[in-house]
Amino acid sequence: MKKHNFTAGPCILAPSVIENLSNAVKDFDGQGLSLVEVSHREKAYEAVHMEALSLFKELLNIPDGYKVVFLGGGASLQFCMIPFNLMNKKSAYLETGVWASKALKEAKLFGEVVTVASSADKNFSYYPKGYSIPKDADYFHITTNNTIYGTEIHEDMDCPVTLIADMSSDIFSRPVDVKKYGMIYGGAQKNLAPAGVTFVVVREDLLGKVDRKIPTMLDYRTHIKEDSMFNTPPVFAIYAMRETLRWVKSIGGVAKMFEMNKAKANLLYNEIDRNTMFQGTAAKEDRSLMNVCFVMTDKFKEKEADFMTFAKENGMVGIKGHRSVGGFRASLYNALPIESVQALVDCMKEFEKKNA
Amino acid sequence: MKKHNFTAGPCILAPSVIENLSNAVKDFDGQGLSLVEVSHREKAYEAVHMEALSLFKELLNIPDGYKVVFLGGGASLQFCMIPFNLMNKKSAYLETGVWASKALKEAKLFGEVVTVASSADKNFSYYPKGYSIPKDADYFHITTNNTIYGTEIHEDMDCPVTLIADMSSDIFSRPVDVKKYGMIYGGAQKNLAPAGVTFVVVREDLLGKVDRKIPTMLDYRTHIKEDSMFNTPPVFAIYAMRETLRWVKSIGGVAKMFEMNKAKANLLYNEIDRNTMFQGTAAKEDRSLMNVCFVMTDKFKEKEADFMTFAKENGMVGIKGHRSVGGFRASLYNALPIESVQALVDCMKEFEKKNA
Repeated sequence: MKKHNFTAGPCILAPSVIENLSNAVKDFDGQGLSLVEVSHREKAYEAVHMEALSLFKELLNIPDGYKVVFLGGGASLQFCMIPFNLMNKKSAYLETGVWASKALKEAKLFGEVVTVASSADKNFSYYPKGYSIPKDADYFHITTNNTIYGTEIHEDMDCPVTLIADMSSDIFSRPVDVKKYGMIYGGAQKNLAPAGVTFVVVREDLLGKVDRKIPTMLDYRTHIKEDSMFNTPPVFAIYAMRETLRWVKSIGGVAKMFEMNKAKANLLYNEIDRNTMFQGTAAKEDRSLMNVCFVMTDKFKEKEADFMTFAKENGMVGIKGHRSVGGFRASLYNALPIESVQALVDCMKEFEKKNA
Repeated sequence: MKKHNFTAGPCILAPSVIENLSNAVKDFDGQGLSLVEVSHREKAYEAVHMEALSLFKELLNIPDGYKVVFLGGGASLQFCMIPFNLMNKKSAYLETGVWASKALKEAKLFGEVVTVASSADKNFSYYPKGYSIPKDADYFHITTNNTIYGTEIHEDMDCPVTLIADMSSDIFSRPVDVKKYGMIYGGAQKNLAPAGVTFVVVREDLLGKVDRKIPTMLDYRTHIKEDSMFNTPPVFAIYAMRETLRWVKSIGGVAKMFEMNKAKANLLYNEIDRNTMFQGTAAKEDRSLMNVCFVMTDKFKEKEADFMTFAKENGMVGIKGHRSVGGFRASLYNALPIESVQALVDCMKEFEKKNA
């Protein structure tokens, strides 16, 4: 049976990416060796590495003055690397979920942290609006998409201080006006690659302005200087990212991805709003295009387990909601085809017919 | 033509590991999904993860009281994590090569570092002996094998303070008396897995004894507590490690690996010593079983490029020496079959016949 992969991450990648990966594990670039056993100093790998960096810049339309680096350790490691590199005395954070909270917790080790606004009062089901950002903060940190709660900031904001964004779960899902940000970063395991590589886009002139000594591996300048080859890079994950970026380009770039993502999300949100058994959990204006969270209405609450079983029987994978929200979550990352969304919508319709 | 992969790392893995990886990228565990697109919270992956941790402990015969963690970021990240977690005021380092130097450089950010001895005077071609370790050091750090210079410590030393060893390039190549160490760590991309995962074995009672605040991701206790699942682990690399550990077990464990590695190294060193055109670069008593460094004798120095071409024509891959040593380096990691060493030896003999 065809599986529809709605997993929140690591998650679905394009079929051509997976096929190329499987082939490269058998034989990399006609070398007679596997991708997993070639040196990262091998010319054929260096070409992959540099192409991944260059496609990343090209497709996200990154202006001059910004550098892209690929690192290991996950976005969670960035939570301390950001203040290490960019915070002198004071920083500001928008608290919109678990990951934002974890990020601001690390910054507290380095100085004063202002939580500008929080949506914790309503289980992070919306984005706070109308807050004011302290002008003397070294930076303002946001999480543009909240995987767990299904909320997303849909615009690149104007910010009076350096804006830093964790885009782990919506990078490459829409065009981004990079020049509005001082730094954009994220784990690659949603729209780009398998788990194991983290991307950082940083405006180079922001670096080297703090007084503290930074351990070499935690200093962005180390990795910029060496084109992300200061130490052995995660070869396989970067190869996969190169494959995904080629695929994004072949489809029509991030503008086309955005169009497709809107169509997929509309299809599912329309059904959630129409169907008498389901309701969304996020504030409508802040609904994520990437992670669609929904529950059963009070009247049908006891049917949730039945729907889960029914959906699974029809090939849906990974639609269980995170324990802090409950119900269901369908992640509609770039590589998920609209046919999978239609299959889920069909399940919801059929379940309603049988049960409502 | 059959390739003989002598690359220094990332490097050769067992054929069965590569085959299983390629298959798992197509379909993981009969799930109808690729290994690169399943959630790390998926039960089938959790089983792989826990089996990798457990085989690591079993095969290295790790006593109670020690914990194993798998991390991203590379062994280079450990160079700062070690003093972060384990150094109060003073640490001691043995300087035996580039990696040891990089490790001790990071420790200097945290306090006093004593370089107990160094072999820099002879281009790191030997291991210093007869040095004394300060009794008031929080730990003594060694690099057990130097990939670049082809030297190795062959015994687990008795140490008056906590002993910490970077075993990136010889882990699982021989039995280790783990209880003599406070911590053992390394990048996995030699004897265990593709690049992208780092292992740490640490005696748990050593942790939590420093005064400084440690960023969450840099604190070993974070990862111990969550069985290396605090954040998304590098799924593919850990799967590969599980496959390699199963393979090591099937062959007969580290004792058998040690026996095979000695046979391979003897075969090559014997030829280097016999052949009139070649000579080894490392002190004989410190010769590495993993990385065999050799050059041409002065008389035949101008033939180095010719031998490189000849060896390549015969299927040898990755035998160019590191630029700081020159000549040739053949890495004989666990997965390299003795047939490949024999093929290299045959090349050396034939080249001598034609040229000497």
